[in-house]
Amino acid sequence: MISELILPNERLDDLHCKGLFIIQDPKRFCFGVDAVLLSGFTKIKPSEQALDLCTGNGVIPILLSAKTKAKKLYGVEIQKESAELAKRSVLYNGLADRVEIFEADVKDLNGIFKPNSLDVITVNPPYMNVGAGMLNEYETKAVSRHEILCTFEDIGRTAQNLLKLGGRMYVVHRPNRLVDVITTLRRNNLEPKILRLVHPKLGKEPILVLIEAIKGGKPFLKVLQPLLIYEDNGEYTPEVYEIYYGNKE
Amino acid sequence: MISELILPNERLDDLHCKGLFIIQDPKRFCFGVDAVLLSGFTKIKPSEQALDLCTGNGVIPILLSAKTKAKKLYGVEIQKESAELAKRSVLYNGLADRVEIFEADVKDLNGIFKPNSLDVITVNPPYMNVGAGMLNEYETKAVSRHEILCTFEDIGRTAQNLLKLGGRMYVVHRPNRLVDVITTLRRNNLEPKILRLVHPKLGKEPILVLIEAIKGGKPFLKVLQPLLIYEDNGEYTPEVYEIYYGNKE
Repeated sequence: MISELILPNERLDDLHCKGLFIIQDPKRFCFGVDAVLLSGFTKIKPSEQALDLCTGNGVIPILLSAKTKAKKLYGVEIQKESAELAKRSVLYNGLADRVEIFEADVKDLNGIFKPNSLDVITVNPPYMNVGAGMLNEYETKAVSRHEILCTFEDIGRTAQNLLKLGGRMYVVHRPNRLVDVITTLRRNNLEPKILRLVHPKLGKEPILVLIEAIKGGKPFLKVLQPLLIYEDNGEYTPEVYEIYYGNKE
Repeated sequence: MISELILPNERLDDLHCKGLFIIQDPKRFCFGVDAVLLSGFTKIKPSEQALDLCTGNGVIPILLSAKTKAKKLYGVEIQKESAELAKRSVLYNGLADRVEIFEADVKDLNGIFKPNSLDVITVNPPYMNVGAGMLNEYETKAVSRHEILCTFEDIGRTAQNLLKLGGRMYVVHRPNRLVDVITTLRRNNLEPKILRLVHPKLGKEPILVLIEAIKGGKPFLKVLQPLLIYEDNGEYTPEVYEIYYGNKE
């Protein structure tokens, strides 16, 4: 029974994207606009294989299954319960042939993936340094929000190891960590090539930054026009509406 | 005679700011909106001493003499003719007590300034890597635009050496060099703290980036809302109008 995939403490959320749903546990980290915008920013060609690090409930590979024609989408998640949630969402959506979730540590993926083998890596990582901000009441949410089990340096090192030369990395992060993100990417031979700041609305400071980096890329950054989430009237801008509800080919 | 300060091949341009003028030579690098926006972005307290690196015709210290109450404003310029132009503009504006220009190499300023002695350093540096873009027909303009005599690494090293701990650096640069700028600043213990992108108008990609870095500052970047230069009707936005024609206290 497909309904047996959802446990009593969980809920089934409509992704409003090609009939996809996601199983979420309100006590665990639930996806937000950052995951959606990252999936809209990520480009994957039909023949390519992509890996989502710190995949949580798997929302990014599941969205990318609809938004791209990627051959294969992998996700790794260190927290056992989140990884199982993600696996059940993959089954629920009938995506087992294209999306595969591993319960694994970002710092040690060599048993699963070969070095220099992946075309694309995506990551919506824990945003906060350990010590920054208040630790969340639930330890599981703290792991998703703070760099407790995985720092951005760990992510950079793994991406450098697993990506092909010329492979692409797509990151969403907080603007206040931009210096850490940029210096870590370059130190790991992942050259930032495209950067876009995401603002809640016109005239407001950005709340997110999206970056495309290329392994072995030459230094030259293209900074795009700001991405605005809301119109003045509180509705999504056409661009964000398209990312949420449209389907890229 | 004050008019003898202006040579036949030169022109006197109105800075539209507290009656200031600047002597420019059309064959040499003339100041642009980047210098004006940097002077508007720079904060200097009345007791502080500031140094402008790669000062060219001295437009930044001259503007800062009007826009701040800085005790003393220095400028260094490696090209002899530009440094002399700057010195004559200082005299023309009657600023000899507050603004001092040195003909000197950014890489070797220890004979002029003591280490850890300055409160503020500003720089509108050559934007292009050697090899990037076409070299300008006039060698003097090429030196102003390309990192021929001075790289951003040279600037970072000098700023680290001359700034007090907690001293501030203000940089204007091209967004496509943002990764170089950020990594160089951090490598030189100049932590980027405030970043603002400058867009010609709404919905356009940025053409400039303004950065405040603090020597020994803790990592945490504040990214401001975009600075737009023009309204849709082609007029300056109120904010840029204020930077050009208003006077900060």
